[in-house]
Amino acid sequence: MQALIGEVFLPAFDNPLLAQRHDGAVFPVEAGRLAFTTDSYVVQPLFFPGGDIGSLAVYGTVNDLAMCGAKPLYLSAGFILEEGFPLETLQRIVASMAEAARLAQVQLVTGDTKVVDRGKGDGIFINTAGIGLVPSGVTVGPQWVRPGDRILLSGDLGRHGMAVLSRREGLGFGGGLESDVAPLHDVVADLLRSGVEVHCLRDLTRGGLAGALNEIAAVAKVGLTIDEPRIPVREPVRGACEIFGLDPLYVANEGRFVAFVPAAEVEPALAVLRRHEVSRHASPIGTVAEAPAPLVVLQTQLGTNRILDLLSGEQLPRIC
Amino acid sequence: MQALIGEVFLPAFDNPLLAQRHDGAVFPVEAGRLAFTTDSYVVQPLFFPGGDIGSLAVYGTVNDLAMCGAKPLYLSAGFILEEGFPLETLQRIVASMAEAARLAQVQLVTGDTKVVDRGKGDGIFINTAGIGLVPSGVTVGPQWVRPGDRILLSGDLGRHGMAVLSRREGLGFGGGLESDVAPLHDVVADLLRSGVEVHCLRDLTRGGLAGALNEIAAVAKVGLTIDEPRIPVREPVRGACEIFGLDPLYVANEGRFVAFVPAAEVEPALAVLRRHEVSRHASPIGTVAEAPAPLVVLQTQLGTNRILDLLSGEQLPRIC
Repeated sequence: MQALIGEVFLPAFDNPLLAQRHDGAVFPVEAGRLAFTTDSYVVQPLFFPGGDIGSLAVYGTVNDLAMCGAKPLYLSAGFILEEGFPLETLQRIVASMAEAARLAQVQLVTGDTKVVDRGKGDGIFINTAGIGLVPSGVTVGPQWVRPGDRILLSGDLGRHGMAVLSRREGLGFGGGLESDVAPLHDVVADLLRSGVEVHCLRDLTRGGLAGALNEIAAVAKVGLTIDEPRIPVREPVRGACEIFGLDPLYVANEGRFVAFVPAAEVEPALAVLRRHEVSRHASPIGTVAEAPAPLVVLQTQLGTNRILDLLSGEQLPRIC
Repeated sequence: MQALIGEVFLPAFDNPLLAQRHDGAVFPVEAGRLAFTTDSYVVQPLFFPGGDIGSLAVYGTVNDLAMCGAKPLYLSAGFILEEGFPLETLQRIVASMAEAARLAQVQLVTGDTKVVDRGKGDGIFINTAGIGLVPSGVTVGPQWVRPGDRILLSGDLGRHGMAVLSRREGLGFGGGLESDVAPLHDVVADLLRSGVEVHCLRDLTRGGLAGALNEIAAVAKVGLTIDEPRIPVREPVRGACEIFGLDPLYVANEGRFVAFVPAAEVEPALAVLRRHEVSRHASPIGTVAEAPAPLVVLQTQLGTNRILDLLSGEQLPRIC
């Protein structure tokens, strides 16, 4: 374990806080509000088109902080390794985490590694927790969503889930089926800094767009209506979804999010989003209305309405 | 997953931050220094004399914060469940975590649950990360250890590791073989508040006393000498160690720590430690000296000296 720490983790994540080698990292903060979040990553396969469990573990937690309106600052990492997991694979994953942390401008400052017996794990599981600073004046969250708000979607759906699933099933769908995994802190910081009034941000991970919208509708106690023709899904994703019998609205993404803004803020918000590669194709996809009970309605291509239920559609296991 | 969150986690850890049900928890902090730490818990069996994986996951992270001199404030929890893990068992564990968090005066404010396929996990793994506030003026850490410092030990050694191992091997050793798992935040806060000058605190988890002392000696670049007859080990622990061929100095504890203090502070520090049940039998066990290379030396019962190497002694897997 000492060798692992000294030879793999410390060099990869080199920073003064980690080098303290104490039970935890200690750092100064200014008065304000912090965001705190955690996720475990159990994705299979560990490497997939567009990313790997390492970049996913960094960006996933960075994005959860960004969705709180926070500037991500520090990450922790907890590794659970199965006995016999190849050191070279661990080093590749750790290198990917270090590179992702560099790109997301966060420091990985504290960590832990446990080893479980062969057959009691699955290679590697990674937990990351993150701390971020919420700028003064920023309040975003599902409870701030109001009737009349517009829903903006940052880009096309379903790439992460279908890239992982296709690789897992050994199917190739040609180009375009790459995970969308990407850090969202930059575009969110720009959006909040620009003065656009933002009510809620949510990334579209497990449960996809449909899952995120249902959760928000439940907390905000509103009805959401989204317009199917406005929701971009790339052809290879659509094809893979058809083969697997999945609805892209329920498939996990790792670099996509929705923003809820007042109607008057739609154009300024889109202008900011479209300045960033990760949300270059952002577009308005729906509206918020009062409703007797929380509800998400899809206006389909055919002009009919369909309730997007939380329980319909399939859950893909071990996508993140 | 929604049902799990709504029916198991939210009621158990009920607090306004968790109830936000956003991607993370947001809370105010005053200007100062924060400590941040993480650990994953993979102990087997899940329930052992004196505790369970749930209380361990809370106290372990609380104690890492305390060892940074911090008052623990907030925890995250990441669960990795193996498909088919009984809901009743999860509820027992979650109830134990909630009770431990109540006793340790921390709030569990954000979490995540992943499910892996049967045979790809081992029932349940839990990661906790924690945030604590370091009081102004407090600086503790291995880098502050100085030649001339004295080493205080908070109590008897080896109970956690031997309690878990004995239960796992199906051996009963009668009374006294219970884990020492306990929260240490209270005694540490009292010690720091009392004005005693404390240079370093370290809990004696994985690697036991010998592991902790070697890590501290390496960072502080000093020699440590400890006095074997002063190190209390209960009879059932000693007996179990003999049967398994283990050295209690290397066995994990979950409620024991060492404090490094200047010689003049030994008596005031012991007076504080002995006020708390968890460290009622605290005693001085050794000294710090300059050394050409980091070294930990044990003065044995027989009057001989033995080097306590980091690599000697056996590592017990999955004790925490």
